[in-house]
Amino acid sequence: MTAAPQPHRMDNRELLDQYLAAGFAGRVGWGERPALLVIDMAGAWTRPEEMIGSDLGGVLENIGLLLDVVRKTDDIPVVFTTMAYDATFSDLPLVTRLKTPHSEQMIRGSDRVQLVPQLRRLPHEAFIEKPRASAFFNTNLLSILVAQRVDTVIVVGCSTSGCIRSTCESALDYGFRAIVPAEAVGDRSASAHEANLFDINARYADVLPIQEVIGHLGGRGPALTG
Amino acid sequence: MTAAPQPHRMDNRELLDQYLAAGFAGRVGWGERPALLVIDMAGAWTRPEEMIGSDLGGVLENIGLLLDVVRKTDDIPVVFTTMAYDATFSDLPLVTRLKTPHSEQMIRGSDRVQLVPQLRRLPHEAFIEKPRASAFFNTNLLSILVAQRVDTVIVVGCSTSGCIRSTCESALDYGFRAIVPAEAVGDRSASAHEANLFDINARYADVLPIQEVIGHLGGRGPALTG
Amino acid sequence: MTAAPQPHRMDNRELLDQYLAAGFAGRVGWGERPALLVIDMAGAWTRPEEMIGSDLGGVLENIGLLLDVVRKTDDIPVVFTTMAYDATFSDLPLVTRLKTPHSEQMIRGSDRVQLVPQLRRLPHEAFIEKPRASAFFNTNLLSILVAQRVDTVIVVGCSTSGCIRSTCESALDYGFRAIVPAEAVGDRSASAHEANLFDINARYADVLPIQEVIGHLGGRGPALTG
Amino acid sequence: MTAAPQPHRMDNRELLDQYLAAGFAGRVGWGERPALLVIDMAGAWTRPEEMIGSDLGGVLENIGLLLDVVRKTDDIPVVFTTMAYDATFSDLPLVTRLKTPHSEQMIRGSDRVQLVPQLRRLPHEAFIEKPRASAFFNTNLLSILVAQRVDTVIVVGCSTSGCIRSTCESALDYGFRAIVPAEAVGDRSASAHEANLFDINARYADVLPIQEVIGHLGGRGPALTG
Repeated sequence: MTAAPQPHRMDNRELLDQYLAAGFAGRVGWGERPALLVIDMAGAWTRPEEMIGSDLGGVLENIGLLLDVVRKTDDIPVVFTTMAYDATFSDLPLVTRLKTPHSEQMIRGSDRVQLVPQLRRLPHEAFIEKPRASAFFNTNLLSILVAQRVDTVIVVGCSTSGCIRSTCESALDYGFRAIVPAEAVGDRSASAHEANLFDINARYADVLPIQEVIGHLGGRGPALTG
Repeated sequence: MTAAPQPHRMDNRELLDQYLAAGFAGRVGWGERPALLVIDMAGAWTRPEEMIGSDLGGVLENIGLLLDVVRKTDDIPVVFTTMAYDATFSDLPLVTRLKTPHSEQMIRGSDRVQLVPQLRRLPHEAFIEKPRASAFFNTNLLSILVAQRVDTVIVVGCSTSGCIRSTCESALDYGFRAIVPAEAVGDRSASAHEANLFDINARYADVLPIQEVIGHLGGRGPALTG
Repeated sequence: MTAAPQPHRMDNRELLDQYLAAGFAGRVGWGERPALLVIDMAGAWTRPEEMIGSDLGGVLENIGLLLDVVRKTDDIPVVFTTMAYDATFSDLPLVTRLKTPHSEQMIRGSDRVQLVPQLRRLPHEAFIEKPRASAFFNTNLLSILVAQRVDTVIVVGCSTSGCIRSTCESALDYGFRAIVPAEAVGDRSASAHEANLFDINARYADVLPIQEVIGHLGGRGPALTG
Repeated sequence: MTAAPQPHRMDNRELLDQYLAAGFAGRVGWGERPALLVIDMAGAWTRPEEMIGSDLGGVLENIGLLLDVVRKTDDIPVVFTTMAYDATFSDLPLVTRLKTPHSEQMIRGSDRVQLVPQLRRLPHEAFIEKPRASAFFNTNLLSILVAQRVDTVIVVGCSTSGCIRSTCESALDYGFRAIVPAEAVGDRSASAHEANLFDINARYADVLPIQEVIGHLGGRGPALTG
């Protein structure tokens, strides 16, 4: 499925009010230097026939819009992630294999873990293999961002209920402002997408309409899909 | 509100089947040495009149049942957590204050961040101040567990949609088996509780009926509240 | 003992040349935003009669010179650290107690772990209790620095062969530029001080004369002790 | 150069006594389940003609003795490490390149970063690419060890003053007992080797004669090189 055209939180005013009263869902706002993190837009996730795949066509198009804007600015770092393990799984703790057996399909170097070609990654854009949901866990992402004085991360890709949420939480934990353009994240389950987008906005990141993100980045907002 | 008497996943067979087919929701099972992590059962969360408080009476009673069983065994470490910051917030990054303004109420040493007395913490049971949702983030919890060869963590307390979920995710990330007794975790929002219990079971931990947990720990299962 | 008046590396040209040929000891240089990290200038370390104490009077004076310069600029964050554990050691893994029995003297709230009063910490200057040698390990330091877009850390205090070296290594690991003003770090052992200052400069940080650091920070270099 | 035939600390009784009096250099001792960590025994380090290479022939032979003993036991996990970066260095923070320019030679997949064939790694023995000195930093090592209930790490390989020391420190930080067989670690600089072996024993790990390690592991100690 594709992401919802409108941020979920708009549709749950009562629940949002309850959270606001409890001191959640404040706005972190934009910092001075953003980076764009494109999470797990690789074959295993984007091909519906794969075990963990779903139709993320609309999400992919919207990420393309963001990449166009970002690459024009020339000073917004872009980082792509995938998940990958050694073919013998010597680097994959047993508990991960037990809880999420699909992990055993993520073999380093295989087609499944390659980025979708439409993203057209440039050589200077980092490509990180992450072992777990958060793009920060046991990867060099944090060091890359610190070294470039990034203070804001725009998180896009999939899945809203897993790697997106987890990456946003880590970002806040480490002192970054995290922004999620709602139409540029997706999930195999519509209900999980909705529920987690609400939690993300309440606890970890600002969930914004993609047009607002594009506007802030100084680009123009073309017509959106989805 | 108190936790649901039955694990959420029981009630969503269709969604669970979808996740099972996608290689999620396997069972991590029990390891050889469990520890009990009691998350954030302190005044700010357990007193309904507090900003982030709710009625967690049933959850507290069920944690009491687990503590009784665990303390009889004499070889299951118990760790309690709370959240606390310096009164000047010099150790609290601005982004956390912006996203969750209730953080500013969690002053080190204040009544709000003290454990509820009913837990009757013993001197050798660790008490950890954590700065963020996961009990592992920037605390000594990991080192404490490694030093005692713990391989399984039983996670109880609140809130299901925040610190419980996050602690379970970190546990799996670090190679631990995580177990959540469904009736011993709670949340201020029933819908957030349900949605996150499903995600926790699908991605990070085994969500089990508390009777099964008590049974495994060698104790007897008295009548449950809730 | 006080720190050496001249950086060690100056005196070991042959060894330095060997390291330069092996691709070590490059200069990280200054970034755009420095912070000053004052490591473990608390009673247990600065009072010679304490178990791990030594005479750090010259180091303390030189740190005072840096604090004067830094506080005038008004935009260089200052962070102080100490080490402290719960009086029951419930938060201190056994291995630490076995390897360094002096850890058992570092009781939270005790006089030994308080900063020396001459530092005159201001309320907005962070004060962090760290459980291990590196100021980054299991503390909020990283999040505090990221949130303020710090890219350079000036590391001062004690001990050169322990917490100073370890903090510099973590800083580089996380993508920061680390600078050590040679006369503002000290150690109980002159040989350990010298050997580790060399390693620090070869591997993790730029070891500079304090006058060069003061000059860069825009201040004037008054006469130095040592 | 090869490692010293006798642990350094034996030769510095006065300095060791000073450290013992200061509450350092206790013994962590053996835990219940050891693992063997073989650090950076790859071409870039073991071929003397390489930029960071030196003659580690004696160290390699002694590691071979340990591997023989360990592989016979069948229940001691073995983990090998190397350092490696993407050919475009998109995953390598600038500060690392500036401080240690040799990092730019560690290209993933190149001959330099392959393990030396004499180690004869078996498929189930983990092989980890680490980005920094400590084998724990931003790798899955910790999760692998936790999942197998390892509580003791035997650290061998190179370099004593860099990756060996740093890995021992991380091990203690995370609650593991660390053991260094003195004759199975080496460094390009004899003085750096000696100075750091002393610090390692004083602060982070037990430095033992290799015969004592082999004896403990249940094997017999054949004649040693070095």
